[in-house]
Amino acid sequence: MINKIYVIGVGLIGGSLAIDIKAKRPDATIFGLDHLEENLTTALELGVIDEKAVFEDLDNADLVILAIPVDATVVLLSRVLDAVSDFGLVVDVGSTKKDICKAVETHPKRRNFLAMHPIAGTEFSGPKAAIPNLFQHKTNIICEVEKTAFKLQEKALNLFAELGMRMRYMNPESHDKHIAYMSHLSHISAFMLGKTVIEKEKNERDIFDMAGSGFESTVRLAKSSPAMWTPIFKQNKDNVIETLEDYIKNLSQFKALLENDDFEGVFNEMKDTNYIKQILNGIQ
Amino acid sequence: MINKIYVIGVGLIGGSLAIDIKAKRPDATIFGLDHLEENLTTALELGVIDEKAVFEDLDNADLVILAIPVDATVVLLSRVLDAVSDFGLVVDVGSTKKDICKAVETHPKRRNFLAMHPIAGTEFSGPKAAIPNLFQHKTNIICEVEKTAFKLQEKALNLFAELGMRMRYMNPESHDKHIAYMSHLSHISAFMLGKTVIEKEKNERDIFDMAGSGFESTVRLAKSSPAMWTPIFKQNKDNVIETLEDYIKNLSQFKALLENDDFEGVFNEMKDTNYIKQILNGIQ
Repeated sequence: MINKIYVIGVGLIGGSLAIDIKAKRPDATIFGLDHLEENLTTALELGVIDEKAVFEDLDNADLVILAIPVDATVVLLSRVLDAVSDFGLVVDVGSTKKDICKAVETHPKRRNFLAMHPIAGTEFSGPKAAIPNLFQHKTNIICEVEKTAFKLQEKALNLFAELGMRMRYMNPESHDKHIAYMSHLSHISAFMLGKTVIEKEKNERDIFDMAGSGFESTVRLAKSSPAMWTPIFKQNKDNVIETLEDYIKNLSQFKALLENDDFEGVFNEMKDTNYIKQILNGIQ
Repeated sequence: MINKIYVIGVGLIGGSLAIDIKAKRPDATIFGLDHLEENLTTALELGVIDEKAVFEDLDNADLVILAIPVDATVVLLSRVLDAVSDFGLVVDVGSTKKDICKAVETHPKRRNFLAMHPIAGTEFSGPKAAIPNLFQHKTNIICEVEKTAFKLQEKALNLFAELGMRMRYMNPESHDKHIAYMSHLSHISAFMLGKTVIEKEKNERDIFDMAGSGFESTVRLAKSSPAMWTPIFKQNKDNVIETLEDYIKNLSQFKALLENDDFEGVFNEMKDTNYIKQILNGIQ
């Protein structure tokens, strides 16, 4: 049974997992740890966690959820594995998987770790951003499942399936390569769209009255946390640079079509890309 | 009074205007015209319009709403002005304003025309995409208001205010320059994001399971209609090219920061752009 759950990092993802697990497993106790005491207090007041805990308590854990920025995960994961008992499972939820898996590949308790990436979130962060049902119908990428003790992974995956996640299995290198296209590039695209517009219009606040729902949707991810995203881009640097090269190339080609008055070409670029409709419908 | 309203182009915008006007003015009759007979039939079946009409009926109109692609507007607008009576007002709803205003600047009935751009929409098109309340709390940019007969503009602006629009006044050149940043660039950004991901992942359909809500939001506008957007980019070519140059420059700088391992720089780029939160909150 998974009764004692320790969430390290009671922010958007850790807190949302805590809320859903509590709803599905009313007998479980959710303990919270965070490097910011005020986050922990907020999480307790909001009922996101049941109790505050400290690192030394981790040997009581059935499940430890590490939901902190990926650079901190690489540093802390070994220490967390050292701290849990042979019956405790540690999972991380980071948006990169290669460096994290590598950090513990020779750890004597490697079998107590499950590397995963639930693809869910919002542009907000911190314990107040935690919401119920965030993981309903969302994909959870599991990496190197074969390296995790079978009984531990089974209990955890049953729990995550109960929260509505569908599991997909992938090696860490493939995960990092593809998530660069499917997620990391979207964030940079939105951040640079926001930057471009702010630079141009910063002295003309009235202009922001012209922002419609299209701009808002496209720029939404530019509200995301730099503290969370900087280490993701650092760990996945090579893949992210490749996506940016492809993206810049496509934008430059589109610009060249405009410059050459090739509006049939412009039309066809958009028509071909409308295919994204079918793809997005397919995933829903 | 505005009792006889002719909507030319019963798609997303024309249809949504028809629905809202009918709701606010139950005594009015909404006539529809469209170059596709099937669109007209659909609009009638859905109750978006009350009756089908033909071009020769336009001299009965109190208000004609021209809601067709901007290249067609430039061609058709003079003929519509020729067709209306001295008491009929013609408005367009196009996403460009300079070429449209220029097309009728010397027209003897220029005072029967009001150039406007309600900044509202979705990524869908056609009469089935028409929805109620699309214009609630949305900005409606009015250009060259001083060139429209006072009594005609007053009646129309009262009606549009009733639909929930807030009016903003701007000259056509400023409109086209700023809307390139606030809307047109978002569309190209989304289309090229979609293209980049499709090109990379087209042979690996499983990968689209990795698409989360962030990707969906950022790429949403890539579902938009090429037939509507190609003439917009054509008419606003110079401004759109300028936005693309700025955007590509910012993306290239971000890539250089990654290549140079300047992650403090990466962090600061994102932190500065988080300012978009305040801007977007301000407009809501």
